[in-house]
Amino acid sequence: MQNHHSNSNLTTDRPTFVTHLECGLEGDRYESDVIQELSKAGRPLLVKYDLEGIAAAITKEELASRPADLWRYREFLPVRKTENIVSLGEIQTPLIPLSKLQTGSGELLVKDEGRLPTGSFKARGLCLAVCMAKELGIDKIAMPTNGNAGAALAAYATRADISTYVFCPDDTPEINVREIAAQGAKVWRVNGLINDCGKIVGQGKEPMGWFDLSTLKEPYRIEGKKTMGLELADQLGWKVPDVIFYPTGGGTGLIGMWKAFNELKEMGWLQGKLPRMVAVQASGCAPIVKAWQEGTRHAELWQDAHTVAAGIRVPVAAGDFLILDAVRESDGFAIAVDDDAIIAAGEEVSQKEGFLMCPEGAATYAAYQQSLANGTVSPEQSAVLYNCATGLKYELPRADQTLDCTKPIDYSSL
Amino acid sequence: MQNHHSNSNLTTDRPTFVTHLECGLEGDRYESDVIQELSKAGRPLLVKYDLEGIAAAITKEELASRPADLWRYREFLPVRKTENIVSLGEIQTPLIPLSKLQTGSGELLVKDEGRLPTGSFKARGLCLAVCMAKELGIDKIAMPTNGNAGAALAAYATRADISTYVFCPDDTPEINVREIAAQGAKVWRVNGLINDCGKIVGQGKEPMGWFDLSTLKEPYRIEGKKTMGLELADQLGWKVPDVIFYPTGGGTGLIGMWKAFNELKEMGWLQGKLPRMVAVQASGCAPIVKAWQEGTRHAELWQDAHTVAAGIRVPVAAGDFLILDAVRESDGFAIAVDDDAIIAAGEEVSQKEGFLMCPEGAATYAAYQQSLANGTVSPEQSAVLYNCATGLKYELPRADQTLDCTKPIDYSSL
Repeated sequence: MQNHHSNSNLTTDRPTFVTHLECGLEGDRYESDVIQELSKAGRPLLVKYDLEGIAAAITKEELASRPADLWRYREFLPVRKTENIVSLGEIQTPLIPLSKLQTGSGELLVKDEGRLPTGSFKARGLCLAVCMAKELGIDKIAMPTNGNAGAALAAYATRADISTYVFCPDDTPEINVREIAAQGAKVWRVNGLINDCGKIVGQGKEPMGWFDLSTLKEPYRIEGKKTMGLELADQLGWKVPDVIFYPTGGGTGLIGMWKAFNELKEMGWLQGKLPRMVAVQASGCAPIVKAWQEGTRHAELWQDAHTVAAGIRVPVAAGDFLILDAVRESDGFAIAVDDDAIIAAGEEVSQKEGFLMCPEGAATYAAYQQSLANGTVSPEQSAVLYNCATGLKYELPRADQTLDCTKPIDYSSL
Repeated sequence: MQNHHSNSNLTTDRPTFVTHLECGLEGDRYESDVIQELSKAGRPLLVKYDLEGIAAAITKEELASRPADLWRYREFLPVRKTENIVSLGEIQTPLIPLSKLQTGSGELLVKDEGRLPTGSFKARGLCLAVCMAKELGIDKIAMPTNGNAGAALAAYATRADISTYVFCPDDTPEINVREIAAQGAKVWRVNGLINDCGKIVGQGKEPMGWFDLSTLKEPYRIEGKKTMGLELADQLGWKVPDVIFYPTGGGTGLIGMWKAFNELKEMGWLQGKLPRMVAVQASGCAPIVKAWQEGTRHAELWQDAHTVAAGIRVPVAAGDFLILDAVRESDGFAIAVDDDAIIAAGEEVSQKEGFLMCPEGAATYAAYQQSLANGTVSPEQSAVLYNCATGLKYELPRADQTLDCTKPIDYSSL
């Protein structure tokens, strides 16, 4: 089976183009290829590339000839050495048309991120973060999680032989806690919220020798999430949709996609208007929506956060200003949908299109409907919704019809 | 977003090459393009193609330039009209190396079928069956299921606006019953086994106007499963592994893959020895293993079938002789593994490789280990294991470590 490996994105060395890191807020410069956490300003670091170098090194045609996975975009990613790639099969996720729910000429597509390893888009960010941890010699990682991120971390870190300590609130979905443990991480249920878990990680860094992999506290999860944007443009023939609806908790994906589109534009690979970026939140936890409405650059901590879409129950995001910048620069907006609308949206998509979304994905369809209704988006505009995880990880309504096969069946009653 | 559709496998018309159908046992000929069920001998019908025509119509290079999904192989499939394609994003499933568990020079890969729509390989067969039902004007489908097949049917049939009636034993996993209902099918829990459900379907055909989509009772589920073989050869650069371990219940996939390899060989696209096909069953339900050991062409009904791997709890398979033919022609074998070995195999793969298998997938790794131990397979031979569904649909062990964040953390205890 030599051909598998010789043609594979996973074993072919490629040139890399990272030049340095930069504070997302202040723009000051940091060295790459050494362990970095937050900037001096306490803000996320962004990875900078020699984009001209990338443009000179590859063509769209060459990209198209490579296997359809995340590693197709190797030149846009920070991993220097092929041997540090840790992979569980990061396939290109499909774009699924919701033709029956489309009301105008604008195509309505879902990008189904539930097909990634461990069943969620968290795989993109954690895959890159773990590859870079391996490249930088890190051997112990700790992280607070509401569920899916911990599952992705456990899988990749185990594969990379890195020890992992995961802390989650005790109301984290049972399936997530179990998959984290099954995939070789140490996991604890904590009688508190995600910020309490974050404190346990922060205070344990010193005595335990942990590297802190909390959202945006290291530079590489954004680079993984960036591939959602690279992949979308690639799948659409290096074009972009008019609008993107993205379920926004920590917002790493929205930040990453916007970074991707701008890198592609700077390289000349995308022309014209970039997509309007829409940050979708739940009415019970909408700090970004509030900040967008009030025109502030940072978001306040949201009190008493609650929603059925637990993945976007994030009261405060370290990258709030990066989310808000992307929304504003792209002529997008932030929108909140309530739990009833989220549940109804999920049911409509699965009952009509046969496609089961996660609650956070369903929130994007609810937001799309609401935006059509209030005129902020037109049915003639093309739209992409992000379904960030498989619907199979979430509680579905019971279905209790029974039939007694020991008696004659009354078919007219079926 | 015009480029999405103009480049897509889903909207590009392609020539088709079906010539007729043929009884898998007797070889007598049946017309294609009309509704067909079993042959006169009561056996599965196989779809026959003008393979020279396919070889003249496409090249491996052209295939490589198409998007990496099931519809890349359009010329090898029975759907005539593009408008009848019903798709939920049937991506090419990844091959994941189990490098840490490999003991010799022979590469050990898992094909992760859990990435398909509805989380299992059943999507391949049901997708094709539903497309053909649509093409042939069928508007009501009924099916007995142990779970995953019903979920795949529900999703595709809803998308195709075909009414669906699904009957499952009342010990079917809760998640399957719920996803069947959520995806728009009518579903009943029946106080019996899969054969009792099958009887309800059989007796209801006439009064209800149902088409019976039971395993191998129509010709097209095999064609969908055939793509597992086409895809594997394609991914390996038109080479094949030495051995394939396949979890075998009804065996549609094993039959389909063997059909694929032989079609490719006849076209000259594969040279040399085809893979040894290994039918993996559970010790508590091993009719194919018994028939293989005893040298019979058909398998007897297995009494008191039981195993943790419910997907291969199939006491009698309509295509038993096709499974046994493939195993024998390929110089393969049939092997049974017990539940303890299945559970231990699953734990070993997830704890060491970070990859969560379903119980049926874990059975293939148990069988691989057992085959290395008894010398029927050598560690120098390359092997592919089929993980037929996402591990997330199955009960995982509890993980109950807790931590009290209201008190100082004793890090030395972690």
